[in-house]
Amino acid sequence: MNREQALLIVKEQLTEQRYVHTMGVMGTAIELANRYDEDTAKAELAAIFHDYAKFRPKEEMKQIILEQNMDNRLLSFHSELWHAPVGAYLVEKEAGIKDEAVLNAIKYHTSGRSGMNKLEKIIYLADYIEPGRVFPGVDEVRELAMISLDEAFLKSVTNTIAFLMSRRQPVFPATFEMYNSIVMKTEVE
Amino acid sequence: MNREQALLIVKEQLTEQRYVHTMGVMGTAIELANRYDEDTAKAELAAIFHDYAKFRPKEEMKQIILEQNMDNRLLSFHSELWHAPVGAYLVEKEAGIKDEAVLNAIKYHTSGRSGMNKLEKIIYLADYIEPGRVFPGVDEVRELAMISLDEAFLKSVTNTIAFLMSRRQPVFPATFEMYNSIVMKTEVE
Repeated sequence: MNREQALLIVKEQLTEQRYVHTMGVMGTAIELANRYDEDTAKAELAAIFHDYAKFRPKEEMKQIILEQNMDNRLLSFHSELWHAPVGAYLVEKEAGIKDEAVLNAIKYHTSGRSGMNKLEKIIYLADYIEPGRVFPGVDEVRELAMISLDEAFLKSVTNTIAFLMSRRQPVFPATFEMYNSIVMKTEVE
Repeated sequence: MNREQALLIVKEQLTEQRYVHTMGVMGTAIELANRYDEDTAKAELAAIFHDYAKFRPKEEMKQIILEQNMDNRLLSFHSELWHAPVGAYLVEKEAGIKDEAVLNAIKYHTSGRSGMNKLEKIIYLADYIEPGRVFPGVDEVRELAMISLDEAFLKSVTNTIAFLMSRRQPVFPATFEMYNSIVMKTEVE
C-alpha cells in the first residue's frame, strides 16, 4: 500500500482536524526514522494509521477489547486509551496491514508498554511533538528529539505522567511500566 | 508497651539524626491522628517503630525478604524500600508488636500500596512532613495536612513520584498503584 492509498483509507475514518494531526505525525515520524535509522516505510504506515479507530463508538471498542481478549484493565481506565489497541486490530482486519511491527507501534502509541522498541518510540514521540501540538514543554521535547531519541522519548513519557497527575487522572499501569523500563534500562530493541 | 519503652528500643537501632527524625514523625503522627480521628496510640507506636530496620545491613534485609516470601519485586528496586517491610517483620519478631494495623503502617510507609487505610496514610504523611523535613513543596503539604488528610496524602504521593521521575529513578509499582487507587477512589478504609 502506498502513501496515497493509506491516506485515502484513514481520511474516511477521521475528522478534518484529526487528519491534519495525522499528516503531522506522518511527517515527524519519517523525520525521526531517517534521523535514527529506522525503516521509514514502516514509520510512515504506522503514523498514517495510528488514530484509525479514534472515532469508533465506545461500545464497539469495548466489544472488541472483550472479544479479542485484550488487556482488560483498559476497561477500568479512560476510553481515550482504547483506540490504540482497537486501532491495531481494525487496521489489520479492515485495511489488511499485517506487519507486526507496524501494528505494535499503533497498538502502543497511547499507553506505551515496557520495553518499547525504536519504531514504537518514534510513533509515540511523533504523536507527542508533531507540529500541530501546542502545550507547555513541547518545544523542549522537540529540541531533544533532534539530539537523542531516548532522551526525547523519556521526557515525553515523564511529561505525560506528570500531566495526568496534575489533573488527578489515573495512569494506565503499562505507562508506569514503560517509565520504569526506560530508567531501569531494560528496553529490548 | 508505653512510649518510653518503645523509644528506648528504637534508640538502639538508629543514628542520633534518625532518632530525632523519628521523634518528629511521632509528634506529627499523633497530631494527625487527633485531627482525623484515628487511634493515637497506634499512630504513636507505628511512628516510633517506622524506621526500626533502617540501618540493618542490606544482606540481612535481602535474606529476610527472600525467606519471608515478601514481594520479591523489591529486590529489583532501590534498597531504600526494603527497611519498611523488613522493619514490620522485625518489629513483630524482636519487639513483640502484634497489632496488624501498626505493622502494616510500618510495612507500607515507604512504598505505599493500593488502598491505604487512614493509619497508613497518617504514618506515610507524617514521615513526609515531620518538622525536620526541608525540601521544596513540603510547606504546601503541611498546610494541606491541616485541612484534609486525603488532599495532603495525594500531594505527598504525587510529589514523591514527580521527584523520583526528576531524578530518573524507578518508581516501585506499589507506589504507582497507590496513586491510581487514590485518584480512582478505590481506597478501602
